Amino acid sequence: MNCDDSCPTLQRDDDSILILDQTALPHQRTFVRLANLADAARAIRTMQVRGAPLIGATAAFGMALALGERTDDASLDAALADLAATRPTAVNLHWALGRMAKRLRPLAPSARREAAWAEAEAIQKEDAAQNAAIGRHGLPLIAEIASRRPGPVRVMTHCNAGWLATCGHGTALAPVYAAQAAGIPLLVWVSETRPRNQGLLTAWELAQSGIPFRLIADNAAGHLLSQGAVDLVITGADRVAANGDTANKIGTYLKALAAQDQGVPFYIAAPGSTLDFSCPNGAAIPIEDRTADEVLVIPGLTPTDQPGEIRLAAAGTPVANPAFDVTPARLITALITERGLVTLDRLGGLYPERNP
Amino acid sequence: MNCDDSCPTLQRDDDSILILDQTALPHQRTFVRLANLADAARAIRTMQVRGAPLIGATAAFGMALALGERTDDASLDAALADLAATRPTAVNLHWALGRMAKRLRPLAPSARREAAWAEAEAIQKEDAAQNAAIGRHGLPLIAEIASRRPGPVRVMTHCNAGWLATCGHGTALAPVYAAQAAGIPLLVWVSETRPRNQGLLTAWELAQSGIPFRLIADNAAGHLLSQGAVDLVITGADRVAANGDTANKIGTYLKALAAQDQGVPFYIAAPGSTLDFSCPNGAAIPIEDRTADEVLVIPGLTPTDQPGEIRLAAAGTPVANPAFDVTPARLITALITERGLVTLDRLGGLYPERNP
Repeated sequence: MNCDDSCPTLQRDDDSILILDQTALPHQRTFVRLANLADAARAIRTMQVRGAPLIGATAAFGMALALGERTDDASLDAALADLAATRPTAVNLHWALGRMAKRLRPLAPSARREAAWAEAEAIQKEDAAQNAAIGRHGLPLIAEIASRRPGPVRVMTHCNAGWLATCGHGTALAPVYAAQAAGIPLLVWVSETRPRNQGLLTAWELAQSGIPFRLIADNAAGHLLSQGAVDLVITGADRVAANGDTANKIGTYLKALAAQDQGVPFYIAAPGSTLDFSCPNGAAIPIEDRTADEVLVIPGLTPTDQPGEIRLAAAGTPVANPAFDVTPARLITALITERGLVTLDRLGGLYPERNP
Repeated sequence: MNCDDSCPTLQRDDDSILILDQTALPHQRTFVRLANLADAARAIRTMQVRGAPLIGATAAFGMALALGERTDDASLDAALADLAATRPTAVNLHWALGRMAKRLRPLAPSARREAAWAEAEAIQKEDAAQNAAIGRHGLPLIAEIASRRPGPVRVMTHCNAGWLATCGHGTALAPVYAAQAAGIPLLVWVSETRPRNQGLLTAWELAQSGIPFRLIADNAAGHLLSQGAVDLVITGADRVAANGDTANKIGTYLKALAAQDQGVPFYIAAPGSTLDFSCPNGAAIPIEDRTADEVLVIPGLTPTDQPGEIRLAAAGTPVANPAFDVTPARLITALITERGLVTLDRLGGLYPERNP
């Protein structure tokens, strides 16, 4: 895989950070410099950075950038509020901002800048370590299938929860990369993930790593599951509620339904920062609605760049574009976390310090 | 709606037929002349005509075109075979060819040409009449919901089973058009239907008819159903097996699962020509695999027209592209046919002459 000790998605460069612009992938590998709070907020909002864990880390660094300008209490609070407002569903954003606030607020303003950089870098490092642990804990699920029969283990995923979505080896793809390292033959079913086509990011990641995969239209998931072509499904998550209901990229719920209908295990891979014990259930998770143009225009081109004849539909076509859905806990076989595998009714036991 | 007595999708013009080229929609309204067997087979294969009923009618006219060249037994059989090989899943194709064969084979070769045109035109007229009957039989399902509460009746559909897919007012959309004519307020959830984006055809149809709709990514269907935003789902079908298992556009099964999970009724609208009593169940329905480029390139542009930066993924990206899936009978509330509503366990009773 393409992720050594340095994080390929987000790197500090003196008093700014460099992010891999994911809206330009897979066609171009472009790094964008974020020099201040506004840059960081915009990068999150426009999905130049995406993936729940990476959003959290970017927000943490966004706080460090903000404190490069002013470090008083009012500025601290304003920066927290600006970053919190960028995206509503992924709770890692709020988790990271909460952690930064807790670390920085007690400090004298003059000590905050340096502490913010240190804390953001700690969050980044911990995310990478958690990815690795998720890989270790997920590996036996794949190895067990490989031990039962010859041929590749067929893993279905959704969206991109690989190294592009994190500071390390990914969440849903961490067990896949771990299985590759263990010499287990694999075939990954990669859903396109309309409307933003993040499945193409997963395809690009896997191609770079030499892991066999097939790109499919999102619609094809049920058919493949019904044909016995899938051994297990693993996706990431944007927020896991206290009862185990899980918000993830729109379309995840449909895959979970088909997996259950066909008797195929369905796993969520996510670090503790994705758990929200203050959120009782899926109905309480805010679901982001995004703009019509995500559905109407060709991904990778801005609306104004698109000649009329290749727009997917006429401008002004009415659209609904919810970006996430909620998969009920009853459809999820288990959660793969950095602390191990856990069924969704036992989340509190795995994180006793956060669920008093 | 935009469909008067003359069929807008397929018209005879002396010894050839004119078809509306659906691969150019919604950007261009282009008619293509089919003058011989090869033209007809290509139009079906490349989906210039699409939709199970329209495929059937086009195949029937394709026989008339074929017999414009040679009318002997060998040529008749060769034409039947050529047309039967164009697309595997929609049974209306085979139904129409079977009907043409039964009508034409007993005739003297010299009498076949004229009889073929007459039979094809009869199939076309009957399809339009059946569409109208499906609309009448489906209307009460919508009217009943409208009578229970104010606001629009929210219908979800998939792919395009409107007038573009038939010789009349459509199958799945026939009850919608009937409800509009009855003054019932409507909102139609239109799934994009990747990879070929036939949902854009449905959006175009509905916009022309002034029926309110929202275009959605296919992935959004489960979320909308879970939010109580859908009153009923109606799709068309490409083949209904004797046990009621139904093949339709890839992704239909996922919608049916979500409808069942949320307690929303799920209907299939299809004429008798879509029923295949010789096919015992869904596992026996052949599922067409189509080419990778349908997934990889921008719909509406040929692969070679696409600049690299707007291809969805690199050429050569491995793809699986099944074009249909099977929805088990247990997920289907009822079938709306030209003979009325029927539950899927009673198909034989509705068509006793075809199920001896």
